[in-house]
Amino acid sequence: MAEFRRDPVDGKWVIIAPERRKRFSTARYEPGQQPPTEQCPFCAGKESLTPSELFAFRDPNTKKDQAGWRVRVIPNRAPILRVEVELQREGVGYYDKVSGLGANEVIIETPDHNQVYSKLPVGHLTEIYIAYRERIRDLKKDNRLKYVLIFKNYGRTAGAVMDHPHSQLIALPILPKQIVEEMRGAKDYYDHKERCIFCDIIHQELEDRERLVFENKDFLVISPWAPIFPFELWIVPISHRPVYADSSDQLLRSLAEAVKTAMSKLDLVLERPHFNLVLHTVAFDVDDSPDYHWHFEILPRLTEVAGFEYGSGFYINPVTPEQAADYLRRAEL
Amino acid sequence: MAEFRRDPVDGKWVIIAPERRKRFSTARYEPGQQPPTEQCPFCAGKESLTPSELFAFRDPNTKKDQAGWRVRVIPNRAPILRVEVELQREGVGYYDKVSGLGANEVIIETPDHNQVYSKLPVGHLTEIYIAYRERIRDLKKDNRLKYVLIFKNYGRTAGAVMDHPHSQLIALPILPKQIVEEMRGAKDYYDHKERCIFCDIIHQELEDRERLVFENKDFLVISPWAPIFPFELWIVPISHRPVYADSSDQLLRSLAEAVKTAMSKLDLVLERPHFNLVLHTVAFDVDDSPDYHWHFEILPRLTEVAGFEYGSGFYINPVTPEQAADYLRRAEL
Repeated sequence: MAEFRRDPVDGKWVIIAPERRKRFSTARYEPGQQPPTEQCPFCAGKESLTPSELFAFRDPNTKKDQAGWRVRVIPNRAPILRVEVELQREGVGYYDKVSGLGANEVIIETPDHNQVYSKLPVGHLTEIYIAYRERIRDLKKDNRLKYVLIFKNYGRTAGAVMDHPHSQLIALPILPKQIVEEMRGAKDYYDHKERCIFCDIIHQELEDRERLVFENKDFLVISPWAPIFPFELWIVPISHRPVYADSSDQLLRSLAEAVKTAMSKLDLVLERPHFNLVLHTVAFDVDDSPDYHWHFEILPRLTEVAGFEYGSGFYINPVTPEQAADYLRRAEL
Repeated sequence: MAEFRRDPVDGKWVIIAPERRKRFSTARYEPGQQPPTEQCPFCAGKESLTPSELFAFRDPNTKKDQAGWRVRVIPNRAPILRVEVELQREGVGYYDKVSGLGANEVIIETPDHNQVYSKLPVGHLTEIYIAYRERIRDLKKDNRLKYVLIFKNYGRTAGAVMDHPHSQLIALPILPKQIVEEMRGAKDYYDHKERCIFCDIIHQELEDRERLVFENKDFLVISPWAPIFPFELWIVPISHRPVYADSSDQLLRSLAEAVKTAMSKLDLVLERPHFNLVLHTVAFDVDDSPDYHWHFEILPRLTEVAGFEYGSGFYINPVTPEQAADYLRRAEL
């Protein structure tokens, strides 16, 4: 059974999931290599190959677990974490572990196996982001859970295994380290200045404009000051908003517009790069926060850049964010 | 010119190095794909293709920058960081940057282009680790520098660009985040218990033996409690030793023996995996420390495991360290 283990020195948590070991023999793919087949369980008409859906946007007069959906959320067939597990915290000598409580879900983004993310219409992307919100709201009711990680891996280099367009959701009884650090950094800043650090970043980026790629009435797309990857982008709400799950449909439509523009520009300039997209939002137990600010991070994974970062926490990026923003601003869609 | 930039939220530093951009078009390789050619500047007899050597182990009666060396350290031909740069710390609006002061060096591990790391004799590996120590001692004299990162990338998946066996050195005017976090975690532990956390880990691993792969009189090779990668290994001195640069020749010979055994077992079990090897030692301004403990980390990079960790700081590892240690203990060399 899976468990969470804490590194006693640096405090990061790792899921040790021996059930996943069969993955070792899974052949990897390049996007586009897996044609829709009788076997793809994410394709329309193959609903019986998956667990029963948790949420869907469907055409009128269609039935649960049958074709007719546009976005469909299902539990992972082989979840690493399970809600049935009892939350147990245990010391093992000097070490700490926590039982594998949580949830793994898959957000199938479209019934069309070959659809490209940046080509999904704004209304369709909006439904995907509403599905994220609805699943977070539902999981938040379980007070043993502390966070929901939502992310999308596209392409082999970004860690994707399935070709059919989808995002993943992992609900956790502990906070991911990156979120702990962001919340701590944001709080320290607030304690000194009584201002949200993200709001200050937005203010500065709107003034400088050097790293600004796109803006609409609700969102900025920026190339951040210290990106770990070339062409990394943040999509940040302009108004102070700590909690993703509090977003209105209208706001998520603006988000969809910003993501579509950002992804279309990346696809044009970098020829459809492999990428990770990660939602950063505040911990479940925070209802409102003067210092944190939810956002999306898009991390293109250009194979030419990799290395020793895992051991050192040190990154080398050969493209300045100002250059990246300049390329992307000029990319005409 | 390169510069260090600090992420204002989570505090990590990134080197932004636009000079490196030509790397974008560099064709990648699988180890073994680059045969020794007239062009490999790391091969014996090609010394004139590199900058002048900073350190070498050579056969008697051979001359600097000519053949006859066994291990040779040279400055990087196109360094990202340079010692000639003046140390400047600058605020840019809400942001922080530091000038690209530092050094990039290459430790050419053998004149033989096709040599395999685990097949290098113990005496030869010892000379590589002495070369690390000598370069750290030399760079430590520059009091603008705070740390030297030494690491080895083997294979495309691990970020290597050159096929000829080598390690890399980056001297920095700031501390890498991973080292800051380890030092902080170790100090917190010491403040509570007045014991070194690494010494306690060693004590526990020697008692449990479940995660112990190999031991000699000076070192343990362990599969750590919360590894981020399958078959990750730590090589830790058994006695309390904070500063790598204080190691005796004798101790580094024991280290070489431990690394050779660890790498031979990994090569046998995982069929010569791509890997990163990273030296973790204490910051330059700490001469002695009751709480930190230098060590090597070996991170095999099995392509089947990748993903969203960059955005989340969250890791999923399908192999328990107990299983990995068991496989490796049983691998007969």
